[in-house]
Amino acid sequence: MKEFSVTVLGSSAAVATDDRNLTSHLINHCNSLFLIDCGEGTQFRLRELRVRTNRIKNIFISHLHGDHFFGLIGLLSTMHLMRRTEEIKVYGPPLLEDIIRLQLKASETSLSYSLIFIETQSEGEEVIYDDGRLTVSSIPLKHRIPTTGFIFREKLQPRHINKEAVDRFGVPIIFYSSLTKGMDFIADDGEIIPNGVLTNPPDIPRTYAFISDTVYNEDIVDSIMGCDLLYHESTFSHDLQHAAHDKMHSTNVQAATIAKLAGAKRLMLGHFSARYDDLSAMLSEAKKTFNETIVAEEGVAIYI
Amino acid sequence: MKEFSVTVLGSSAAVATDDRNLTSHLINHCNSLFLIDCGEGTQFRLRELRVRTNRIKNIFISHLHGDHFFGLIGLLSTMHLMRRTEEIKVYGPPLLEDIIRLQLKASETSLSYSLIFIETQSEGEEVIYDDGRLTVSSIPLKHRIPTTGFIFREKLQPRHINKEAVDRFGVPIIFYSSLTKGMDFIADDGEIIPNGVLTNPPDIPRTYAFISDTVYNEDIVDSIMGCDLLYHESTFSHDLQHAAHDKMHSTNVQAATIAKLAGAKRLMLGHFSARYDDLSAMLSEAKKTFNETIVAEEGVAIYI
Repeated sequence: MKEFSVTVLGSSAAVATDDRNLTSHLINHCNSLFLIDCGEGTQFRLRELRVRTNRIKNIFISHLHGDHFFGLIGLLSTMHLMRRTEEIKVYGPPLLEDIIRLQLKASETSLSYSLIFIETQSEGEEVIYDDGRLTVSSIPLKHRIPTTGFIFREKLQPRHINKEAVDRFGVPIIFYSSLTKGMDFIADDGEIIPNGVLTNPPDIPRTYAFISDTVYNEDIVDSIMGCDLLYHESTFSHDLQHAAHDKMHSTNVQAATIAKLAGAKRLMLGHFSARYDDLSAMLSEAKKTFNETIVAEEGVAIYI
Repeated sequence: MKEFSVTVLGSSAAVATDDRNLTSHLINHCNSLFLIDCGEGTQFRLRELRVRTNRIKNIFISHLHGDHFFGLIGLLSTMHLMRRTEEIKVYGPPLLEDIIRLQLKASETSLSYSLIFIETQSEGEEVIYDDGRLTVSSIPLKHRIPTTGFIFREKLQPRHINKEAVDRFGVPIIFYSSLTKGMDFIADDGEIIPNGVLTNPPDIPRTYAFISDTVYNEDIVDSIMGCDLLYHESTFSHDLQHAAHDKMHSTNVQAATIAKLAGAKRLMLGHFSARYDDLSAMLSEAKKTFNETIVAEEGVAIYI
């Protein structure tokens, strides 16, 4: 199975701590790298992990609170200083382009690469990226300012040719393409060889859902139904559910409840308030609602 | 003597390295803290050094290349999140306020404190800060975009009362203030007690000059004449003097030459290109021109 992994670069809420950096997730899908959010210092995390930033071609920004995007201008500038030539696409709220362009103007920088902004909207789910193997959708979240989550969904791929079977039935190579699309094969003598004999099923498409800052919101459940890995913010533990509601954030138990309602296979908690040094209570409380829960550990790839 | 120190928080040129962070200097003058430049990650350096950022009331930005200011919005935002109430003044090029305000607008942030911008200009030297004990002047540098250096000059303070002498001559306390200003004392019998008998000279005012990104430029020498500590950028060693000139940066030997011409007491080199791992050759070459040279060491206070 092709790689599909998430490496959390920062797991803190708005104020970073000695142990936790500001939000950013690095996604590897079949060796294409994607970045979700880009808090201050993200470029340093990428350097520490020896990620070649040239491989990142798409960056998704959930909203314009600083802990989710203040590192973007620095990353884009460093890519320029490193003489990047590959185009880069940035998906985010409307004002993001103004903010980046104003800073490039102030430094009289004409980028070495093409920088394209795609505006997200927070009215409904929308496919904003599609490379034939993977789509990325934005979905509206409920936070203090316009915010979206992002859902990375593998597309159903063609069926796999069963090499032993096609050889046995003498299927010419020219028919392989239609076999992978599910067609049966009709031999010269008129015999119909069913597709299921000649091919194996495609890999089951996998889904990663990134649920950025949001108040508890069951409206998202349909969109993330059955996802393989759900990242859901968990700024507070459940004793502070009223504070979470006031600040339009979620608790660990709320995140676990969403995971349960959505039938997610796994849940990863993150965006922890600086008040929590030790996250073990945060985790164990969430596991009571949804057992397959982990806490984000920075710099460690989670395979989906 | 009252504290007057500089702690370098970042000593790298535009691209940070594993060992060097982006430009920022923390100045402590008589327990007032000042920040000069604020590259990405500066707030994390301040946290590592356990600096209470509430004590920083004035921030000076030399120019709008990202390695000198991309950390400002993050620092200002964190101060807000920490519920700062003390006013803060930021001195920098005109577009800086637009950049910061646009980002505050995007996050719908109404700061918990008053944020005041003072525009610097790069036409001539100008006193932009004066608290009675210290002035800060901006001076124009020659770089690719408008850039200023900053000169921190202690003001001449009143003379010190010689307690033993005033007691011996029976000088009433009411005259102390005029004594500290240099007046003689006339005793009841008409005898003139010279000021020099009753007071000791004030501390010799100290000067710190921060020479940010600049091509070699002797025009600055008059402004920094006799300074106690000169920080001068030294992006390249001298074999790359042509590259330095093309990029409007300086070499180690050029920095040392400016220090020598200005009769500086000490020179601190910084803003090192990422190509230099080991700085010992950079240093020893500069010392041939100006022996009292050091290289910036991050996190270490240099006393002036």
